[in-house]
Amino acid sequence: MKLRPVGIVIEAGDAARIRIYEQYSSALLRVTPGDEYWVLYWMHQLAEPDRELLQAHPMGDRSKEKRGVFALRSPMRPNPIGLTRVKLLERDGNVLTVEGLDALEGSPVIDIKPY
Amino acid sequence: MKLRPVGIVIEAGDAARIRIYEQYSSALLRVTPGDEYWVLYWMHQLAEPDRELLQAHPMGDRSKEKRGVFALRSPMRPNPIGLTRVKLLERDGNVLTVEGLDALEGSPVIDIKPY
Repeated sequence: MKLRPVGIVIEAGDAARIRIYEQYSSALLRVTPGDEYWVLYWMHQLAEPDRELLQAHPMGDRSKEKRGVFALRSPMRPNPIGLTRVKLLERDGNVLTVEGLDALEGSPVIDIKPY
Repeated sequence: MKLRPVGIVIEAGDAARIRIYEQYSSALLRVTPGDEYWVLYWMHQLAEPDRELLQAHPMGDRSKEKRGVFALRSPMRPNPIGLTRVKLLERDGNVLTVEGLDALEGSPVIDIKPY
């Protein structure tokens, strides 16, 4: 189960930008501005030990009881895959401008699926 | 970007069953019947060449124009990760019974996230 990066987040923020790699361009046929998509990405800034953490306080708030990571949206989890619903604002060739992406700059993009 | 299986689909169907592996048990703390979750799983029955297919007819219907796989929910895509929203019906230790899972029996489970 080895993932292939299909693109990369080149700019984070309210209007984030994703560049899809050239060899995956044709997978963008009919990806349409105005439509909503799921973006799956790899949370690349986590270290290996972060994948071993199985429980955490919600939002890091120690006044809240610990939960298992499967009951949390915490980025620390066995497989650090981020899942965000976005709205496609614009498409310029292989570069997608999207609203709602919470990925950091440099995150490898794994998949895009229609919402 | 190597994925670790955290469990396996032991029964497909309307009330599907997932077994989470022993070493990930503690990640289930406060995973609660009645709540909804995302299940990410690996579509293990696809072959390597299926990952090269970048365009397809929607639902395999040749009367419909081809789309890029990023504009389709087709299982054939560069990273064959399935994403399904489920309702947790029951939890018996490490075995989760869920409604709505479209995974096949034997699919490795990659992640569970609260909806």
